[in-house]
Amino acid sequence: MQPPTVHLVGAGPGDPELLTLKAARLLQLADVVVHDRLVGDGVLSLVQPRARRIDVGKAPGRHAMRQDEINELLRRLAAPDRVVVRLKGGDPFVFGRGGEEALHLLRHGIAVEVVPGITAAAGCAASALIPLTHRGLATGVRFVTGHCREAEPLELDWRGLADPDTTLVVYMGLAHIDRIVAQLVAAGLPPATPAAAIAEGTTPRERVVRAPLATIAEAVRAARLGSPTLFVIGRVVEALALPVEVAVRPAPLAGLEVRGHG
Amino acid sequence: MQPPTVHLVGAGPGDPELLTLKAARLLQLADVVVHDRLVGDGVLSLVQPRARRIDVGKAPGRHAMRQDEINELLRRLAAPDRVVVRLKGGDPFVFGRGGEEALHLLRHGIAVEVVPGITAAAGCAASALIPLTHRGLATGVRFVTGHCREAEPLELDWRGLADPDTTLVVYMGLAHIDRIVAQLVAAGLPPATPAAAIAEGTTPRERVVRAPLATIAEAVRAARLGSPTLFVIGRVVEALALPVEVAVRPAPLAGLEVRGHG
Repeated sequence: MQPPTVHLVGAGPGDPELLTLKAARLLQLADVVVHDRLVGDGVLSLVQPRARRIDVGKAPGRHAMRQDEINELLRRLAAPDRVVVRLKGGDPFVFGRGGEEALHLLRHGIAVEVVPGITAAAGCAASALIPLTHRGLATGVRFVTGHCREAEPLELDWRGLADPDTTLVVYMGLAHIDRIVAQLVAAGLPPATPAAAIAEGTTPRERVVRAPLATIAEAVRAARLGSPTLFVIGRVVEALALPVEVAVRPAPLAGLEVRGHG
Repeated sequence: MQPPTVHLVGAGPGDPELLTLKAARLLQLADVVVHDRLVGDGVLSLVQPRARRIDVGKAPGRHAMRQDEINELLRRLAAPDRVVVRLKGGDPFVFGRGGEEALHLLRHGIAVEVVPGITAAAGCAASALIPLTHRGLATGVRFVTGHCREAEPLELDWRGLADPDTTLVVYMGLAHIDRIVAQLVAAGLPPATPAAAIAEGTTPRERVVRAPLATIAEAVRAARLGSPTLFVIGRVVEALALPVEVAVRPAPLAGLEVRGHG
């Protein structure tokens, strides 16, 4: 008999082909799937029709479950021999609040397994051909979130973030991008630092906007990018940006159909 | 007809189940697979017997190909309608030198597709139950490499790295862990900061050692951890560290066999 267990599973950045084999199998075995709004239909199409699906995400104009309600829902769903999957966009442990869910479950004696997912930074970087680290351009990479509660200031270590040798990836930064850019420039990051915004990365609706840091906010507004949009800031953004006639994009392979995509 | 294309594919952190669906299919379609030493047999077992396999990794006592030789090999292998897969441990764009290979290929008019992989930080964090970000403990995460050329100093922004609100992940840090710890402490990171070392994360040989930053190097030596070992430093290391009698670990699911594992 399986003890009560919840599988916290990363759904990856959007493209269902970027699920891990383990995540895909767990979705096929699941009795219950508790998912966020950002998990796409292509991923959810792997769930068996017999399985119960619970959407706890925030849909416009609808009540979204609070985090403590989700924690408690997962605890109640866990039962011996029941495969409970908590499916989260990206990776459960990177801005996914998976730690809070795991903590609540472990405290109640429920086993937790975490299946990592391709986080948006890796998915968008691959898709937009932006290496997150690159010899001579970036010795490391860091991920921060631009999200903050209403009426609260965005408190980040701007001096530390304004490091030209580190690639900076900002998750959920669309609402505050003007402030983020102003703070980075004030802290010493050159306004000419290359930047990119990737909206709906790895999906068929992906759009990439590139501009110097100083004008990226304006460029994103001009292009009317919506959520989710990820920002990548640093010299790596231009590392592979070759003239269009040189940079050939691959054609899709016949054997690689993207099931349920789009 | 497919134009000459090289697929730079992330093999993930070790567990073959953590390959993406896309990576697994590309391996099955590949005519040629150029791989590193750290890519395990479980992953390579997906390659068709008819495909050519080229190991460019550094085996102890053997000549490893230089990066420029690998770049040139990939360029020569690329041909119309030939599926060439460059398989790299983890993610091609996180300390994988995938950017250098992509740049060389693009400059020669060869198309490049990058398939992201689960990077070691995400794989090890999931496996060791360490959230990389967590409310109240870490507002972000950063990845650096502890690797440097012989006789060169390890030049990192220690002041910036010594941020107690950011989780620090050190790749390839085993050889220089004493120096890394000393520099972090000198830059102000409290010696009591929780740290973990994860060796061969996500494989059946995974071992996790936890200790305060001040003694992690000693603990790793006492446990005789070998390569690859990933370090995670920050308050998140203790976020889910509950008493053993509370933290239940899940049993493996019957339907989830790990093909080629071990």
